[in-house]
Amino acid sequence: MRWPDKATLYTVIFGTETPAGRRFDIILIVVILLSISVLFIDSIASVRAHYGGVLYWLEWGFTVLFTLEYAVRVYCAKKRLGYVRSFYGIVDILAVLPTYLAVLLPGASLLLMIRLLRVMRIFRVMKLVRYADEEQILWRSLKQSRRKITVFFSSLFILVTLFGSLLYAVEGPEYGFTSIPVSIYWAVVTITTVGFGDITPQTPLGQAIATLTMLLGYAIIAVPTGIITAHLGREIQRHRDQRRCPQCDKSGHEEDADFCKYCGGELEEPHPPTGQ
Amino acid sequence: MRWPDKATLYTVIFGTETPAGRRFDIILIVVILLSISVLFIDSIASVRAHYGGVLYWLEWGFTVLFTLEYAVRVYCAKKRLGYVRSFYGIVDILAVLPTYLAVLLPGASLLLMIRLLRVMRIFRVMKLVRYADEEQILWRSLKQSRRKITVFFSSLFILVTLFGSLLYAVEGPEYGFTSIPVSIYWAVVTITTVGFGDITPQTPLGQAIATLTMLLGYAIIAVPTGIITAHLGREIQRHRDQRRCPQCDKSGHEEDADFCKYCGGELEEPHPPTGQ
Amino acid sequence: MRWPDKATLYTVIFGTETPAGRRFDIILIVVILLSISVLFIDSIASVRAHYGGVLYWLEWGFTVLFTLEYAVRVYCAKKRLGYVRSFYGIVDILAVLPTYLAVLLPGASLLLMIRLLRVMRIFRVMKLVRYADEEQILWRSLKQSRRKITVFFSSLFILVTLFGSLLYAVEGPEYGFTSIPVSIYWAVVTITTVGFGDITPQTPLGQAIATLTMLLGYAIIAVPTGIITAHLGREIQRHRDQRRCPQCDKSGHEEDADFCKYCGGELEEPHPPTGQ
Amino acid sequence: MRWPDKATLYTVIFGTETPAGRRFDIILIVVILLSISVLFIDSIASVRAHYGGVLYWLEWGFTVLFTLEYAVRVYCAKKRLGYVRSFYGIVDILAVLPTYLAVLLPGASLLLMIRLLRVMRIFRVMKLVRYADEEQILWRSLKQSRRKITVFFSSLFILVTLFGSLLYAVEGPEYGFTSIPVSIYWAVVTITTVGFGDITPQTPLGQAIATLTMLLGYAIIAVPTGIITAHLGREIQRHRDQRRCPQCDKSGHEEDADFCKYCGGELEEPHPPTGQ
Repeated sequence: MRWPDKATLYTVIFGTETPAGRRFDIILIVVILLSISVLFIDSIASVRAHYGGVLYWLEWGFTVLFTLEYAVRVYCAKKRLGYVRSFYGIVDILAVLPTYLAVLLPGASLLLMIRLLRVMRIFRVMKLVRYADEEQILWRSLKQSRRKITVFFSSLFILVTLFGSLLYAVEGPEYGFTSIPVSIYWAVVTITTVGFGDITPQTPLGQAIATLTMLLGYAIIAVPTGIITAHLGREIQRHRDQRRCPQCDKSGHEEDADFCKYCGGELEEPHPPTGQ
Repeated sequence: MRWPDKATLYTVIFGTETPAGRRFDIILIVVILLSISVLFIDSIASVRAHYGGVLYWLEWGFTVLFTLEYAVRVYCAKKRLGYVRSFYGIVDILAVLPTYLAVLLPGASLLLMIRLLRVMRIFRVMKLVRYADEEQILWRSLKQSRRKITVFFSSLFILVTLFGSLLYAVEGPEYGFTSIPVSIYWAVVTITTVGFGDITPQTPLGQAIATLTMLLGYAIIAVPTGIITAHLGREIQRHRDQRRCPQCDKSGHEEDADFCKYCGGELEEPHPPTGQ
Repeated sequence: MRWPDKATLYTVIFGTETPAGRRFDIILIVVILLSISVLFIDSIASVRAHYGGVLYWLEWGFTVLFTLEYAVRVYCAKKRLGYVRSFYGIVDILAVLPTYLAVLLPGASLLLMIRLLRVMRIFRVMKLVRYADEEQILWRSLKQSRRKITVFFSSLFILVTLFGSLLYAVEGPEYGFTSIPVSIYWAVVTITTVGFGDITPQTPLGQAIATLTMLLGYAIIAVPTGIITAHLGREIQRHRDQRRCPQCDKSGHEEDADFCKYCGGELEEPHPPTGQ
Repeated sequence: MRWPDKATLYTVIFGTETPAGRRFDIILIVVILLSISVLFIDSIASVRAHYGGVLYWLEWGFTVLFTLEYAVRVYCAKKRLGYVRSFYGIVDILAVLPTYLAVLLPGASLLLMIRLLRVMRIFRVMKLVRYADEEQILWRSLKQSRRKITVFFSSLFILVTLFGSLLYAVEGPEYGFTSIPVSIYWAVVTITTVGFGDITPQTPLGQAIATLTMLLGYAIIAVPTGIITAHLGREIQRHRDQRRCPQCDKSGHEEDADFCKYCGGELEEPHPPTGQ
């Protein structure tokens, strides 16, 4: 096997269009997930006691591998400084540094969780296989409902602060509401219907106010759902309207249609709305 | 009473079209539910102490019954090997084996829960009574929103891992966050708004990050709901458009309409979209 | 003040159309709510210790009042036996009997909670003030999505039983999963995102399966919401289409419109769809 | 710097249209949030022990500042009595009084949380930057679904009272269900899927009824969501229909459109529906 030239390396490592490029990305994601799994099980005390040594060397193995990969990426990048300064360039270097740092600073290896961000490449890989549209629709829906969501979260903030302060005043430190920030934490736990139960009202008045908080949380959970749904419905409709038959130029095809329902002509793959 | 011939047996046992066939299936489902109930109450320590003997023999009674039924099914099946190898054939044999196995291996009787899968025949019975369409619509909606759901769960996975690791770093083993997997379990408990409260953040920083996790969980619960709703709405519309009056060929009838609203002609039962 | 005749009494007590009739119903509901409040606070140990006597006589006062009301209702009803046998007739007698019974059986007074069902008259009162339509729409939406909801709850039942049994097998009695019914209770607590935390998985495998249960619960909570929303949207549309201007016979008016947007003619109050 | 005249002061302090007016409001909101933060951290026992003195003087600083602001507001208001009696006028005076009161009554400083209501000015500021429409849509949706929501909460109230009383009767005081009000509190905690776990059913019958409560809560959470979503969808549609191109008078433009899609004419900013 000959050593591949710089252009081929670039296509394989940075590209996702060629089969080799996609294969490289998929292998990379698997290796990243493996290296994260090593971090996961290394955090279990009983496992570390038995296999700490193996995991330590596995960790170094992954770090050397990723360091080499980073070096090759810098070597074959078209604009070296551009890559080094890009989001992925910074993530790639941050994903190996902690292991070296941990030689000096023992706690630094936790920073290796930053490797998880490398998994976000998975979206880049999937983008090619028709996920782009779905992301587009989700994203546009969120963007369009941005202002409604801001109004909603501002109101939520005021509600949570008021109810939290109220319960701090009513229940007080002896029942676990030790300070206003802690009481606001309780109000968030309650209004989002999480309900840990680590802090709960004990006085009748506190329980009455808590009942009101819960009913409010129950009622307003409907608001963000309604906002997203209404916008999503419109985006899906709009997206469908923009997919035209290349033969007869008519729109309104189902998302899973492969042929035009008016003239039978083959439809193109759905694509993001133009001018986007 | 004469012993029924093979063809009649087949119609009764495998078929669901004839009244006898449907009656057999309904009785079978009731017997399966009864045998599962025996397993349920046998797992209660105090009940087993008193009625353990009765329940043991009931269990054997059901097993012998189901073994006989299996034998008859194999006997009268049109393609014997086909049935034995089919999903239901395998479930049917697995639903009796554990009792025999338990003679040798005491714990094996728990495997009898596999009988629950036999209850899924209930869908086959109900299918005939107009449920087919509903399943179709639900299924198509899920299939069409498959990609949006994949993007959603990938993001959820990254969020849960990041927040879990963050809380492991902030709170640490002394507050119950004993390892990263346990912390991820906590993050899932929190972001899905389940909130067991077996592990809860105790430090102010941990509670602040938990607050963020909960608000995120609260906000993004809207996304899958919005996705399903939007697609479901379109599927219901589409389904309605495809139900045509046999007389005047017009569509757009309400789901519960029995007569055409344009010409008064009797409408057929709604049926799954053609070409499905 | 003259003693009113039977017909006037009937109009006031049974009717809701006249101002006097509505006033009577509203006073009745307030008195019922008061009598229930007495039951509520009587159940608080510290209150009963101090005011037990007063509450006891208040309770007897309400009972005598409701007994008199029942007697008058029987007296002035058009068809006495018809009223006595009707739903409200039975509720009305059951709402006073427990107090008399409690003289003989001390625990019987708890049955007085049946008085709460008398509050359902509130819907009859509100029906006149435009609530009928809303109930209609909600009810029709639920009826139309009945089959989808059945499929949904059957699947939920199978899921909950499977996950419950699985956790009983994995965790076992030592971690609180004392029997299969208790484990199914846990599964319901988890999949509905309630999450009491009285029983929680402690083993890694149990926590992994619990994670799966929670994500499933999170995902499928979207299904009933989607079903209801989609049907509700259609019902609202349909309801709007059926409200016609009495002058120009055009439909499509906003729900809060009082005048026809095409000819300016006054619109009638919205009413339930005909033929319903 | 000259002392500004009364009219200029009015524009800056009360107005939000001029850059100076908006800048004043934003600074005011930041100062209010700071003064609330002081209250927050002052409630933490360990912080108060160390920095209690500093926080005390900070608190007095903010109070003097807000008192001065109130005096200037009264001075430059067009209708002095009108301002003093208005909602914001009352909130503004209530936001400073507690500090003075606390000299006599130590606990009064908690009332300073009323300052949070001053933050609601934030909506007035944001209104100018296009949030008016969103609030309009949210508000109209809530108003239109008001009656459905009333029916929903009445039913919820009856359900919660019935289930609460039922569990009080079944479980009783020994398992934490100490009174009917406490049991209703439990029922609200359960049906809203909050699930604190401070009170949980222990008897098999109690757990069975709790299972029913949870499934009901799970099912009916869909109803308010469905109601809001359906109305919100219609409001968004209606809002879009009312935005017309000033050139060709055609409607139906996307919310984010800046130019008419029919004639290319520039569109005005979306505005609340006329006659609203």
